[in-house]
Amino acid sequence: MSLADDMLAMGARARTAAGQLRTAPADRRSAAIRAAAALLRDRAADILAANAEDVAAATFLVDRLRLDEGRVEAIAASLDQVAALPDPVGAEMARWRRPSGLDIARVRTPIGVIGMIFESRPNVAADAAAICLRSGNALILRGGSDALRSCLAIHEAIAAGLEQAGLPVDAVQIVPTADRAAVGAMLAGLGGAIDLIIPRGGKALVARVEEEARVPVLGHLEGICHTYVHASADPGMALDIVVNAKMRRVSVCGATETLLIDRAAAPDLLPRIAAALAEQGCVLRGDAESRGLAEGIEPAEEADWTAEYLAPILAVRIVAGLDEAVGHIRRYGSGHTDAIVAEDQAAAEAFLAEVDSAIAMWNASTQFADGGEFGFGAEIGIATGRLHARGPVGPEQLTTFKYVVRGTGQVRG
Amino acid sequence: MSLADDMLAMGARARTAAGQLRTAPADRRSAAIRAAAALLRDRAADILAANAEDVAAATFLVDRLRLDEGRVEAIAASLDQVAALPDPVGAEMARWRRPSGLDIARVRTPIGVIGMIFESRPNVAADAAAICLRSGNALILRGGSDALRSCLAIHEAIAAGLEQAGLPVDAVQIVPTADRAAVGAMLAGLGGAIDLIIPRGGKALVARVEEEARVPVLGHLEGICHTYVHASADPGMALDIVVNAKMRRVSVCGATETLLIDRAAAPDLLPRIAAALAEQGCVLRGDAESRGLAEGIEPAEEADWTAEYLAPILAVRIVAGLDEAVGHIRRYGSGHTDAIVAEDQAAAEAFLAEVDSAIAMWNASTQFADGGEFGFGAEIGIATGRLHARGPVGPEQLTTFKYVVRGTGQVRG
Repeated sequence: MSLADDMLAMGARARTAAGQLRTAPADRRSAAIRAAAALLRDRAADILAANAEDVAAATFLVDRLRLDEGRVEAIAASLDQVAALPDPVGAEMARWRRPSGLDIARVRTPIGVIGMIFESRPNVAADAAAICLRSGNALILRGGSDALRSCLAIHEAIAAGLEQAGLPVDAVQIVPTADRAAVGAMLAGLGGAIDLIIPRGGKALVARVEEEARVPVLGHLEGICHTYVHASADPGMALDIVVNAKMRRVSVCGATETLLIDRAAAPDLLPRIAAALAEQGCVLRGDAESRGLAEGIEPAEEADWTAEYLAPILAVRIVAGLDEAVGHIRRYGSGHTDAIVAEDQAAAEAFLAEVDSAIAMWNASTQFADGGEFGFGAEIGIATGRLHARGPVGPEQLTTFKYVVRGTGQVRG
Repeated sequence: MSLADDMLAMGARARTAAGQLRTAPADRRSAAIRAAAALLRDRAADILAANAEDVAAATFLVDRLRLDEGRVEAIAASLDQVAALPDPVGAEMARWRRPSGLDIARVRTPIGVIGMIFESRPNVAADAAAICLRSGNALILRGGSDALRSCLAIHEAIAAGLEQAGLPVDAVQIVPTADRAAVGAMLAGLGGAIDLIIPRGGKALVARVEEEARVPVLGHLEGICHTYVHASADPGMALDIVVNAKMRRVSVCGATETLLIDRAAAPDLLPRIAAALAEQGCVLRGDAESRGLAEGIEPAEEADWTAEYLAPILAVRIVAGLDEAVGHIRRYGSGHTDAIVAEDQAAAEAFLAEVDSAIAMWNASTQFADGGEFGFGAEIGIATGRLHARGPVGPEQLTTFKYVVRGTGQVRG
């Protein structure tokens, strides 16, 4: 069979499995996730051996690719956590009665078949499988070629977990080849079998998905996150938040990439912030005004305002006030997470209303942009599109709903 | 300027207007809708004159195209109703506090810029404008060439209403040309200006949109709705529901197109149903078994099971029971609305659980598939996709949400 035929067959099996999964009880889906976690622990040596082959062949991003015993345990523990989460499937989101006497309920249901296209990090395979099982969705995984052996080994444990729990193994499938044509087949929808594509990876991958997809996409674009220090900010709080927002982990999408600081507060605060960041090895790139206020700030170019550094680099700009800060965020931001630090409540509420990103924050670090921190238990990313789900995507965000209407013989007049 | 440039400029104006609209107070948006309704009434003669030109030039679907004084009044009254609906923008959908002390709210916000591509019925222009203004979205309308003069006249009233209310006239724009390249430009997203495309029209239009769109689409596909009469059905109720579900209005997407009837109930019920439908001028097309049970049923072909007749024609099939009925619906249905008539509660609940359409009904006519009947006040259609919104699409379904996070200086550990 050709790759195209193989992919269509995979889609058909996923569709069948999705039908079975949709009506499978929650505890059986939990059992499958827990069994997969146990099998990941049992097979850690095999997984690490497969990973070592990937690492040996890798030419870049080796850090994201490499597993060790601790990371395998972390993946298994994450699965156990998802297994313990409340199950969203079948929950009544609302129920009301109409003057006609009709009883209408809005009930959560799985979306169906999710296609996950991702790069580098093999843990994504396990996390996505667990979150899809928790939400009753079948999953087709397509990892990057650099992590293929690791992902196949992880997938084996998941498939065995499904089998142990009496669920169809086709509920979680993985594309077993590095052939890039497989991505094209998934983006075309596998003959109507895929309901939603979730891309996780670099700009080139996301651009290809946006360009080619013929099915809905839950986009995870960049996190060009801003922290705006208002003139009314408490200086100590501003310092702590900016340093944490940038430096706690520089590689996460919720890391602040641009600091906006009010002209009135900058002469006092910027030198202290710059010094604290420099001490942690962070490079600042600022506009001319900021460079006049603190030592060692490099000149920023236009491209710095749209850079997702994911590195110890911070762009800095002095602004006249709230309006200019909001204007900058609207123009250059990516709709991910943006924060204001302010004691002035009216200014803060104006910021929260006017910034239309997935997450608008007041007096908190942008690094809280995370499904776990939001109480969702797990996430497979932060959606930056405007439809279906915004912000952290956990099991609940991977459901849709249907209306269940109960009558007593009503006909419409 | 070329059409492409004109369209990009329209998109840029819509994006600017969306920003203003998003923070405009609800009562100003209500005022604009009410002013548009009043202007539609004032200008009824002009609108009818424009419509007469469209009708004179039309070669098909003249019924859907034709306006008269009563229809213009109905359009205006519908706008007044939308103006009186509760405003969804800014509503807190949920709010909770995390162990970190962060206060997280999920707040409804407008989607942004909606592109509406529709055919024939000029009232869609007014309905879509009202629902978009109620939900704080800017709108770009692109009607079919056959209704262009009518839609332009209706749009003039809406633009004047926006102006009277002090809102940007660019909040609702209409493509002023019948050039089909305008549709292509909208499907490409107008340089990132369009957040969501909503197609309303025939199969050819929807197919083009699904094929070409580079932005999210809220699909309104066909309504291949089923009514399944279970063996336990109350015969009188089944008769009333089937006749109403098919014949109340045959041209709506919630009209039943296929009757499935249990083998045990068919010998008694089918002749009565067939006679009642025949009396109202409905043609039945059935499988061999059904044709043996009642007079005058024409033979059904495979294509009848996927036909959206929108006409007094009903496909009929005898089934062995619930599983076969659900299997038929899964195979041939369009995920719109499907109903069971049954006294057996366990069978009904199994049907409601297993049928995964946007609307699953028990003992009610599929013609209740309607935003008004659901209590949404207004709708611009019934979504048949699985993402973002399913079923009736009213103002609330045209919103998205953002998270507003209020802290007291939290940094992440």
